[in-house]
Amino acid sequence: MRLYPEHVTNETLDTAGLLPAEAIDALERAATSAHRHDGLFSERAANIRQSAVRDVFDVSMRPGLVSLAGGSPYLQSLPLERLAETAAAIIANEGLIALQYGGGQGMEELRKQICEVMAAEGILDAVPQNVVITAGSQSAQDVATKVFCNPGDVVLVENPTYVGALNTFEAYQVKVETVEMDDDGLVPELLGARIAALQTAGKNIKFLYTIPSFNNPSGITLAKERRQRIVEICRNANILVLEDNPYGLLRFDGAPLAPLRADHPGDVIYLGSFSKIFAPGLRIGWALVPEHLQRRYYLASESVTLCPPTLNQMLVSAYLRDYDWKGQIAIYRGLYAERCQAMLDALDEHMPDGISWTTPEGGFFVWVTLPQGVDTYPLLQKAIDAGVVFIPGAAFTPSDEPSNKLRLAFSAVPPEAITEGVRRLAPVLREAIAGL
Amino acid sequence: MRLYPEHVTNETLDTAGLLPAEAIDALERAATSAHRHDGLFSERAANIRQSAVRDVFDVSMRPGLVSLAGGSPYLQSLPLERLAETAAAIIANEGLIALQYGGGQGMEELRKQICEVMAAEGILDAVPQNVVITAGSQSAQDVATKVFCNPGDVVLVENPTYVGALNTFEAYQVKVETVEMDDDGLVPELLGARIAALQTAGKNIKFLYTIPSFNNPSGITLAKERRQRIVEICRNANILVLEDNPYGLLRFDGAPLAPLRADHPGDVIYLGSFSKIFAPGLRIGWALVPEHLQRRYYLASESVTLCPPTLNQMLVSAYLRDYDWKGQIAIYRGLYAERCQAMLDALDEHMPDGISWTTPEGGFFVWVTLPQGVDTYPLLQKAIDAGVVFIPGAAFTPSDEPSNKLRLAFSAVPPEAITEGVRRLAPVLREAIAGL
Repeated sequence: MRLYPEHVTNETLDTAGLLPAEAIDALERAATSAHRHDGLFSERAANIRQSAVRDVFDVSMRPGLVSLAGGSPYLQSLPLERLAETAAAIIANEGLIALQYGGGQGMEELRKQICEVMAAEGILDAVPQNVVITAGSQSAQDVATKVFCNPGDVVLVENPTYVGALNTFEAYQVKVETVEMDDDGLVPELLGARIAALQTAGKNIKFLYTIPSFNNPSGITLAKERRQRIVEICRNANILVLEDNPYGLLRFDGAPLAPLRADHPGDVIYLGSFSKIFAPGLRIGWALVPEHLQRRYYLASESVTLCPPTLNQMLVSAYLRDYDWKGQIAIYRGLYAERCQAMLDALDEHMPDGISWTTPEGGFFVWVTLPQGVDTYPLLQKAIDAGVVFIPGAAFTPSDEPSNKLRLAFSAVPPEAITEGVRRLAPVLREAIAGL
Repeated sequence: MRLYPEHVTNETLDTAGLLPAEAIDALERAATSAHRHDGLFSERAANIRQSAVRDVFDVSMRPGLVSLAGGSPYLQSLPLERLAETAAAIIANEGLIALQYGGGQGMEELRKQICEVMAAEGILDAVPQNVVITAGSQSAQDVATKVFCNPGDVVLVENPTYVGALNTFEAYQVKVETVEMDDDGLVPELLGARIAALQTAGKNIKFLYTIPSFNNPSGITLAKERRQRIVEICRNANILVLEDNPYGLLRFDGAPLAPLRADHPGDVIYLGSFSKIFAPGLRIGWALVPEHLQRRYYLASESVTLCPPTLNQMLVSAYLRDYDWKGQIAIYRGLYAERCQAMLDALDEHMPDGISWTTPEGGFFVWVTLPQGVDTYPLLQKAIDAGVVFIPGAAFTPSDEPSNKLRLAFSAVPPEAITEGVRRLAPVLREAIAGL
């Protein structure tokens, strides 16, 4: 994962190219001057760095820019007026509960409903006792790492994988090892060989972190016929699977593929989220934890936040109870399918020779591969100058090597803007290839 | 900190005394049987245990019981109807922001307003750039520990201190060392001597965690004339101060005492919360971090939850902008002063000889001391049988020794119930003393 130097903040990046050289020098001096507190930082603190995705969060807000960077859902299709009434009713009628502390595991009613959501994804045997509601799925990842990983332990991830997960693992001083994917996702033979090699070398592998459906950032889906095999390989090596499935229900066509958890209740910790199918600003996610691991997971979660926000849990619960949430997901699926197609069409039309990209079956992202030798990292600033933002591929691997990949998100912008964004990006990439 | 055995869950405690012996045996067998995943837990996972406060959370809900256990604020005095309208307006008019991801540091507008809240507490120089909004103040503690503490590092705490902080520190394998208080709070000479002894022994002390105003659980306040000295002692030893001040504005009479942070911007990380002065169910707290520590703190916070819940931030922001929040605090101060007095009066009337208690100047708690030799831990079940709940003192120290103390909270129940609760508690304590 290549990152910006530590002294580059959102604010400086936001004005990248606009700061006079003296101001940049002053920032660098300030960042490098010693302070008597410097020795107080934990070892892990040095591993916690700015993610490229968050770096461009502010940049993406600039008027006139087309942001193909952030994986934000398109909330315009939510029934805001009705949600406003629902929230008002909760506070007016049940405010003494909604505004008060709640249980650390989350509200039982919502945990029951979450089991219904998971049933729609293909997990039919989940029980509320094994669900732990968290302040967003990111927090559920953090808790899993806290509960299982000592410094120096190994976590396996797909190459590429979610930058937020890499940040979490690095914060716990975990050694992240990658396993390659092909067009059908993780390659079982490569996974098996990697595990064998690491375990032979005495490494302590704790879990495989995987986003099997519409992987962030690649958009690649683990083929149905491989899913059973992946879990078996991990089980045979006594490694847990941490399955992150925020996009699972957002498959453009046909029924969702059953998650890895579906047939393997004892070996998979399953992470779900309302951020992509409802509203990320509520920060409600969950973990479905094997029964024998549930208690430690739950206590660790409670020790971080005491309880997930009560009002937000009740709003999600009311949404699942009173609204056509499956109908809303159908709307999202159509919306994102259309945007994905707009992106694929624009790539077809505008991209120069030598560039390829994935064709996702759902989710938010297309993964673009440039010719060997192109580093997409320095292209970001050129793209911003051209009026479009993407995320350089290096953000999505634990390595510091240059990457010839980049991630484009189609979820948050209308089709015309997607087309315009790709059109603006094309000459930047063409120039980079010409410079090889 | 004495805790329930790991296999005692909320559910079993909730039915304590009602489960047949066979069922308890089965639970114990299940809890002790080995699983092939047992070796996958991190070392820290063994340190994350159930807190006594959370243990009795469910018990406290039992009809007919008087709970003097939980430090919940009394929300009945909030203008719920108006808050319902405010929340509705936010979602209807600004729902695309309120329900979407936000910045990792929290919304700038709210960070500005938080500076105004801190000004009311006596911190006049805070700037929004150094404020990090978190999912509750508990999360801010977790981040501070993550950023500064390696396993084996030392954190100093008051004896007694907040059980949630002890849980957080134990989760990071921090060695917690206590410093004694007298009626004026932490004793500077004892703090200095303790630091000297630990540093001479080669210990790595990272910070002093302190709740200087109306300490949880003791209700004791650090005297004004000691505050400067405490920070100086820490600064001279190159130790940070982590000041937790959720109750600071809830002083019954007169102006709040200026926090330790007020005159020491470079040496104190200040934790604030809306849980006691507004609504804990929103899970919005904050840290005011010295400028030279801000960036690492902020990035660590972001890596845990991406961003604090947006809707909740906007609701707090609107509350601070449009409501008489200082008037609401005045209402709370009067309410809690009345309840505290009811508790002190009831203790005067009902407690047998040999029992003493603190006289808090604000906050939520009274700390009761029984004669030496009484262990309050086994008295909890007897109190529950008598219809009242408290928290045994052992929960609030890192030691496993028996404690002759207990915490009574007066915040959440009306004066008559407080009186009744103390009346029910008295014979339980009298019997314990008689049994010495």
